Amino acid sequence: VSTSGLNMSRRIRRTPYTDKVEAAGVRGFSVVNHMLLPKAFQPSVEEDYWHLREHVQLWDVSCQRQVQIQGPDAARLVQWMTPRNLSRAQVGQCMYVPVIDADAGLVNDPVLLKLADDRFWLSIADSDVLLYAKGLAIGAGMDVDVSEPDVSTLAVQGPKAENLMAGLFGETIRKVGFFRFGWFNFQGTRQLIARSGYSRQGGFEIYLNDSALGPALWDAVWDAGQAHHIAPGCPNLIERIEGGLFSYGNEMTRENNPLEIGLGKYCALDDSVDYIGRAALQSIAAKGVQREMRGVLFDGGPCPPCGKPWPVMAGPNRDQPVGQITSAAWSPRLQRNVGLSMIERAFWQPGQPVTVHSADGQQRSGQVCSLPFA
Amino acid sequence: VSTSGLNMSRRIRRTPYTDKVEAAGVRGFSVVNHMLLPKAFQPSVEEDYWHLREHVQLWDVSCQRQVQIQGPDAARLVQWMTPRNLSRAQVGQCMYVPVIDADAGLVNDPVLLKLADDRFWLSIADSDVLLYAKGLAIGAGMDVDVSEPDVSTLAVQGPKAENLMAGLFGETIRKVGFFRFGWFNFQGTRQLIARSGYSRQGGFEIYLNDSALGPALWDAVWDAGQAHHIAPGCPNLIERIEGGLFSYGNEMTRENNPLEIGLGKYCALDDSVDYIGRAALQSIAAKGVQREMRGVLFDGGPCPPCGKPWPVMAGPNRDQPVGQITSAAWSPRLQRNVGLSMIERAFWQPGQPVTVHSADGQQRSGQVCSLPFA
Repeated sequence: VSTSGLNMSRRIRRTPYTDKVEAAGVRGFSVVNHMLLPKAFQPSVEEDYWHLREHVQLWDVSCQRQVQIQGPDAARLVQWMTPRNLSRAQVGQCMYVPVIDADAGLVNDPVLLKLADDRFWLSIADSDVLLYAKGLAIGAGMDVDVSEPDVSTLAVQGPKAENLMAGLFGETIRKVGFFRFGWFNFQGTRQLIARSGYSRQGGFEIYLNDSALGPALWDAVWDAGQAHHIAPGCPNLIERIEGGLFSYGNEMTRENNPLEIGLGKYCALDDSVDYIGRAALQSIAAKGVQREMRGVLFDGGPCPPCGKPWPVMAGPNRDQPVGQITSAAWSPRLQRNVGLSMIERAFWQPGQPVTVHSADGQQRSGQVCSLPFA
Repeated sequence: VSTSGLNMSRRIRRTPYTDKVEAAGVRGFSVVNHMLLPKAFQPSVEEDYWHLREHVQLWDVSCQRQVQIQGPDAARLVQWMTPRNLSRAQVGQCMYVPVIDADAGLVNDPVLLKLADDRFWLSIADSDVLLYAKGLAIGAGMDVDVSEPDVSTLAVQGPKAENLMAGLFGETIRKVGFFRFGWFNFQGTRQLIARSGYSRQGGFEIYLNDSALGPALWDAVWDAGQAHHIAPGCPNLIERIEGGLFSYGNEMTRENNPLEIGLGKYCALDDSVDYIGRAALQSIAAKGVQREMRGVLFDGGPCPPCGKPWPVMAGPNRDQPVGQITSAAWSPRLQRNVGLSMIERAFWQPGQPVTVHSADGQQRSGQVCSLPFA
């Protein structure tokens, strides 16, 4: 019912690759930025996981919409939106930039692509950054154009991605560094390709700028991938938890500041740059954060899906709430469950014993650990 | 797979009623404002439709999130966000207010509730109006607080809603006029109840302000509804199309201005009030809109779900694109398909013959008609 059900409305947008993804046997979709994101392929998330670590996968991540900010005030607006110091950002660079509000609450955690001194893309997680940017620009009377270009990203992820891409786009793609991008030819068009992606297995993201070319690009990568044991895939829950990759809406919301998410290294806490929420963030830093994101390894056999936060308890009687798991999965490699949890300061040292109250009613023994999981 | 799959992430938020909705046999969910919206109940959308027209239904519409705008500049910010003249808005009033950007593109079409001269709720459709409002307030340096209160709306819809609600909340609720609200007691708390809802069958919306009371409120309405043949329900696709109720993301996006959606009566086109996009809207009005929303009645047996726009063709050879259907369903009452479509000016007169190209490859004969459907 619901797999097709999610397609039943224009409001939940299909992508240029959705027909291909359906033909490839997608098992269901999630919704990100009002757009379909494939959720899993046959036969299981576990087999997808092993495949991703060994071979190469093709992911429809069109839902990573681009918010284009262009014009004389573009650089000023983008800097105003993030605590990260962008003064040395280079054209051709990708930067992970927390976006916060006046209270230092996280609005999104996009990747910023600098296309020119006056043109940027924010490749966003699941919130309408476009409306935030528009509001700021209108409110402050800035001379910028804020738009959503026709860009649909196709990710090629896994250890064999580079050989595949070199075969398809030429050897020079090997020279593109991590979190850098270049421009490559596809059917007579010039397309942005970055070495990046939402996994720890390496790979590229093709920011295809023209929906009409979507099916041809999918087919081209698919065909080139045959020699590399390619499979359709999608961001893998197990792999991203093990790798300590957070998800906006899961591990962080506007209730969280970037410091407790471990993004302090991307925050200028002095007065060197001016951004929204600076005073709030400086105040939080001065007091010291009271909780921080950690891994939790826990027992009791494969856990159910984590649809709402699970209490993490500690203390002598394990009856003191010290955090909440917001994403969890069974790790077939570690043969234990792995979870991501905010943990209170007094309990965040690796090795701290905890009890996880999972949604199935079980109380599971576990321990705090550092990220990424070993 | 996917019904439960949609629950698998905290990012897609459950509501205070989700447990009840699942126990009541929900067939699947959609996602609106990062939150679950029930999609259909057993046995079918058609039976839901007939039931809604005769009896009373209980809908979890918590996804209609409230954007609270409060403070000395609240009234100024709210007026700035909409072309509708709010100068005579009264406390206790609900108003349908298009929200637009600088190009007069629709950002959302919420219902505004005036709680006090300096406190408003925007009860939103599917886009992050909170981020737009925050951006505007920060950009313009306005003295307002913009937040999402813990309000989860439960709709009681259908011709028997008033009797049910009078039994539960007292006879005075009968005096609440259409698009007006009052405050009523529930378990010692004061809750906002409006005569409103996303159907043409009449009813109320209870803006429950305290998630913890959700299950108790569901049960109270459910129990009071037993005498009125209550059933669980949700916004009904057939009923809303027949009634000419539009859906943001389906019938309208930022590509549309409020005039072509038929919202001209909510737009001050003179210079009496100052709002974002006024110059653009005045310019569009001066030129005259080139397309407008219409109904289309069409043949060929029950149509498939409308997951992406369907071309509407006219002209002597029926080969001229004149619009696109964005929502469609089989009407068991009219025994024809009903659709909502933007239609070009030269073809928007009721009775205009058209051909609809539905997703199943059929070319279906039909005609343009006025809204709501008879």
